[in-house]
Amino acid sequence: MQIAELVRRSGVPLARVKFYIREGMLPPGSATGARRAEYDESHLERLRLIRSLTTVAGLPLARAKQILDVIDHPEGSVSDMLARAIAALAAPEDPDHTTPAGTAQDYHRAAAALPALGPTYASSDAGMTAFAQLENALRAAEEAGLPVSDARLRVYGEHIAAIARLEIDNLPADPKAAVPYAVLGTAVYEPVLAALRRLAHQNLTVERHSR
Amino acid sequence: MQIAELVRRSGVPLARVKFYIREGMLPPGSATGARRAEYDESHLERLRLIRSLTTVAGLPLARAKQILDVIDHPEGSVSDMLARAIAALAAPEDPDHTTPAGTAQDYHRAAAALPALGPTYASSDAGMTAFAQLENALRAAEEAGLPVSDARLRVYGEHIAAIARLEIDNLPADPKAAVPYAVLGTAVYEPVLAALRRLAHQNLTVERHSR
Repeated sequence: MQIAELVRRSGVPLARVKFYIREGMLPPGSATGARRAEYDESHLERLRLIRSLTTVAGLPLARAKQILDVIDHPEGSVSDMLARAIAALAAPEDPDHTTPAGTAQDYHRAAAALPALGPTYASSDAGMTAFAQLENALRAAEEAGLPVSDARLRVYGEHIAAIARLEIDNLPADPKAAVPYAVLGTAVYEPVLAALRRLAHQNLTVERHSR
Repeated sequence: MQIAELVRRSGVPLARVKFYIREGMLPPGSATGARRAEYDESHLERLRLIRSLTTVAGLPLARAKQILDVIDHPEGSVSDMLARAIAALAAPEDPDHTTPAGTAQDYHRAAAALPALGPTYASSDAGMTAFAQLENALRAAEEAGLPVSDARLRVYGEHIAAIARLEIDNLPADPKAAVPYAVLGTAVYEPVLAALRRLAHQNLTVERHSR
């Protein structure tokens, strides 16, 4: 297809398509003339992926490029690739990635939470992006006067582990498919879980007070 | 205490304290002279609550005022009060509350999800803020090419219900305390749960691929 059709079918404006090509995020079409190039379904699929990463996952361009880079250069194990992809995702409370990588000592709240969280979390270390994220979330709760008790950590840890296990079990075996699934799935299912929690709160409150 | 001490102990700037008094969010001190007023611990506590609502829960001023209004005018049952408080919380994907209240028909994805979600969610209806939020989250997942299957809804529904049950069991009996707990708890524990999910993903990926 020609670039006009690629624009029409993807819904991505022409200037944006050209920009992605210049940035190396989208491969150029195959030249069929001095000023003509031919595009195929792989270009369309790639544009959809870029769009999902930037709009659905809300990643800034630089982060989206990192994810594409992981997909395009499948080096190391699937777990290495996923770790690189997950690290490129901004933590919700740290959209600019300003939290410096720290040590377990800097993250003493997260480290202290591990025993109560249970076996799934036992290998957590300060090198994991989510470890800093947990530290920040626990500190914010503490500062709001609602510190997270061990009893609460036990319940959270057990049930979130069950959810995460289902999600990892559904991970595609092919690393090229696994990376976008992991990145988009992290972003896409988080609001579903947040909505369900609020819906359960409302149902349980009604139930409790109508007894 | 005088207003200078209130400013110092709360960390809220003088202009801001005066603004909250003008807006009716903070009661004025008791006059002890033509230009002097006396403040007490209740003012300090109130300022901390306002600060938590605006910074921790991230509520815009108008929403924070609604929450304070629910606390100051405890009408109806605790469950009514909580419903009013929860409704004042912006959904993460709808910070401006632009989603109009709809009917179960408008929310066909959320309505279709209920059977798989299980008994805790059975009384959900379109009047609940979280119902619209669930619809939006399910639609976004679908548009990203990652629709939420019934098998996934069953696992999400069961485990999020267990988490929500613990949270509601910890609700203070006094409505005046229950409303801030519900509002702040919804906001404060959400990032904790999100961080745990990502941490579990990282642990499970490592575990799975090192076998």
